Amino acid sequence: MSAYHVKAFGTEAPEADLKQMDIERRETTPKDVEIEILYCGVCHSDLHTARNDWGGTIYPAVPGHEIVGRVTKVGREVTKFKAGDLAAVGCMVDSCMTCESCKNDLEQYCLNGFTGTYNGKDKHSGIQTFGGYSEKVVVDEHFVLKVPDNLDLPGVAPLLCAGITTWSPLRHWKVGKGSKVAVVGLGGLGHMALKLAHALEAEVTLFSRTPGKAEDAKRLGADHVIISTEDAQMQSVKGKFDVIIDTVPYVHDVNPYVATLHHSGTLVLVGYLGDLTPMLNSAPMVIGRKAVAGSLIGGIAETQEMLDFCGEHHIVSDIEIIKMQDINKAYERMLKSDVKYRFVIDMASLKYKS
Amino acid sequence: MSAYHVKAFGTEAPEADLKQMDIERRETTPKDVEIEILYCGVCHSDLHTARNDWGGTIYPAVPGHEIVGRVTKVGREVTKFKAGDLAAVGCMVDSCMTCESCKNDLEQYCLNGFTGTYNGKDKHSGIQTFGGYSEKVVVDEHFVLKVPDNLDLPGVAPLLCAGITTWSPLRHWKVGKGSKVAVVGLGGLGHMALKLAHALEAEVTLFSRTPGKAEDAKRLGADHVIISTEDAQMQSVKGKFDVIIDTVPYVHDVNPYVATLHHSGTLVLVGYLGDLTPMLNSAPMVIGRKAVAGSLIGGIAETQEMLDFCGEHHIVSDIEIIKMQDINKAYERMLKSDVKYRFVIDMASLKYKS
Repeated sequence: MSAYHVKAFGTEAPEADLKQMDIERRETTPKDVEIEILYCGVCHSDLHTARNDWGGTIYPAVPGHEIVGRVTKVGREVTKFKAGDLAAVGCMVDSCMTCESCKNDLEQYCLNGFTGTYNGKDKHSGIQTFGGYSEKVVVDEHFVLKVPDNLDLPGVAPLLCAGITTWSPLRHWKVGKGSKVAVVGLGGLGHMALKLAHALEAEVTLFSRTPGKAEDAKRLGADHVIISTEDAQMQSVKGKFDVIIDTVPYVHDVNPYVATLHHSGTLVLVGYLGDLTPMLNSAPMVIGRKAVAGSLIGGIAETQEMLDFCGEHHIVSDIEIIKMQDINKAYERMLKSDVKYRFVIDMASLKYKS
Repeated sequence: MSAYHVKAFGTEAPEADLKQMDIERRETTPKDVEIEILYCGVCHSDLHTARNDWGGTIYPAVPGHEIVGRVTKVGREVTKFKAGDLAAVGCMVDSCMTCESCKNDLEQYCLNGFTGTYNGKDKHSGIQTFGGYSEKVVVDEHFVLKVPDNLDLPGVAPLLCAGITTWSPLRHWKVGKGSKVAVVGLGGLGHMALKLAHALEAEVTLFSRTPGKAEDAKRLGADHVIISTEDAQMQSVKGKFDVIIDTVPYVHDVNPYVATLHHSGTLVLVGYLGDLTPMLNSAPMVIGRKAVAGSLIGGIAETQEMLDFCGEHHIVSDIEIIKMQDINKAYERMLKSDVKYRFVIDMASLKYKS
C-alpha cells in the first residue's frame, strides 16, 4: 500500500542509542485518522523494547505509546474526528474487532492479540508498527481517543498508558467512595494511581520503601503513607485494604502486602511480569478470601472514560518536558527513578536539526 | 458453668489412635440448641487436627465438623428450632457477632476469629471445643442450620464442609448458567464442586491427573474431563475457564491451570494452604487480568442457602458409611484417597460397646 516518510527517533540495535531516522506511515485509509504528534510520554516499556530486554524487538524500533496531538487528516469513513481536533493514541492501534473481547470493549484482551502501537505488526503494511517518537501517526479511528480541551496537553500524554493502567483495575475492582486503596510504588504508574483513586473518593495509602516521599504523596492524593520496611507501620494496616495497586516493575515480595488486604480484597500487579519470588503463600489468601491478580492497560471505551474523568477532575500527570534529542539521557535517569513522575517529549523538537 | 458428660471418640496425642472417651458439653444456655448427632462426615481436617499436622492441636481432641442430627432441647430464647427438628452444624460454632464481617454474614472471616467446631476455644466453658464424633453437641442457634427433609440424611453431613467450601466460591465469583467452570481434583471437595457447579447450570470440566475417572466425573456433573498430564488436552482448554475451583490439598503447580483461565478469570484455591511452588508467574495474570485467590468455607446464611439449594436440586454427597470404631482405618484409607467420596460416621455406632 502507499506510504510516505516521516521523521522519527528510534534505534537499530539493543545496544545502540536512539537517533533520528525516517520511517514510513501508511496513507490514511478510509477509516484512518492522521495525527501530528505534539507530545509523547516516555514509558518504561519504551526503554525495555528499545533495548530488547523482553526479547522480540524488531529493529529499527521506534517507541512511544503515550501520544497526544492534533488531527491533520481523516479518511472518508471517519466520523469521530475532523482535522484540527485534539486526539490521543495509547498502547494499541488495532485489534481483531471480531472476538468476544473486542466486542465487549476489552481490546487489550483481544483473543487474536491486539496490535501494539510499536513493535506490533501493522495489518495494512505487514511490517512492524512504529510508535510516537515521530512527527505523525496514522491510526484507525476506533483506537483514537478524544482529549478534553481543558487539560494541559503535555500532562495528558502519560494518561494514555500510566493513567489507563491504573484506572482500569480501580474500576474493575469497583473502587469508589469509601474504598480503602493502597498503592505500592511512587513512579509514573504509582503517582497516577494516587491521583485517580483519590478522585474516585477512596481513602488512599501509599506504600513506600523510603521515608521522604510523604509530602509529595499527600499532594498527589494519598491520605496516608506507610513505610513498608517498618514492621510497626505494616502491622498498623494489617487487614485494611480492599484493593492494592502494585506498580513495582521488578520482582518483590508481595506477601507483606497480601497481609494488609481486607478479607475479600485483591492485590493487582500492573508493573511486574515474572515469577513471584519469594513464593506467594496461599494460606492468608484462603483464610481471608484474598486474591492476587494482574491487569493490563484498559480497553478503548474505558480509556475514553478515564480521559473524560480526568477532564472533569482536572487530572494530568506530573511531568518533566524533554527534547527528543535528550531521550537517551532520559532513559538513564528513568533507570535511576530520577523523574517526577514522567518524561514527556515535546515533539516540536524533532523539527530541529538532530 | 454447668456441664454434663457425653460419649465421644477422640485422641490424647498426635501418634495415638482415636478411642472412646467422655467429654463435657455445656448445659444449654438460653440461645443454645442441643443436638443428638446422627451422622458426622470425616474431613481431611479431622485427621490433620487429630495428628497435630498443622500444630496447635489441644488434647484431648475430638474431630468432626460435618454434623447432622436431631434437636433434643432448646434454650428459652431459641426461635429457629424446636425439639425433634433436623439440624446441622458445620465448621463454626461461634464468632464475635459484632464485627463488620459477622454483621455481613461472613462469620468465616470474623475479624476476631470464629470459634471452630473443634479445637476452638468455647467462649462459655473456656476450654477447647469438641467436634461431632460424639453423642451430642450444644451450639448457639445462630450457628445451627436447617436441613431439607427430602434429602438422605447421611449424605447431607459432608455438605457442611465439603459442600459449603465449594459453594461459596462458586457464588462469590458469580457462577451461573453458561459459566465455564473447571474443578481440579476429584475427592470430597471436588466431587461436590462438580455437583454444585452442574446444578448452577455451568459448563463443568474436571481436571484429573489420571485417566479412568471420566465416567464417574460425568455421572457427578462434569461435561468434560481433561487429563492434566496430557499437553494436547491442556492446550485444548487454554483460555477457557471463568472460574477454576482447585481442591488439591497438597502443593502443586498452579501455572498450567492459570493458562486455562479466560481473561478476567479466577482460580480459587480451597484445599491447599502454603507456599505456591513452583512459583506463580504473574505475566499471564497481567496479560489476561487473571486472579489466583483463596476461599474459606462460607458464612452461615450462605451455608443455609447451599443446603436449601441442595434440597431443591436433590444434591447430597456420595458417601461410604462407617462405624465410629472404624475411624482409624478410615483415616488410613483417606490418606490413600481410597474413598468415594466421603466417609460418614453412623453415630448410632457410638452406643455399641467400643
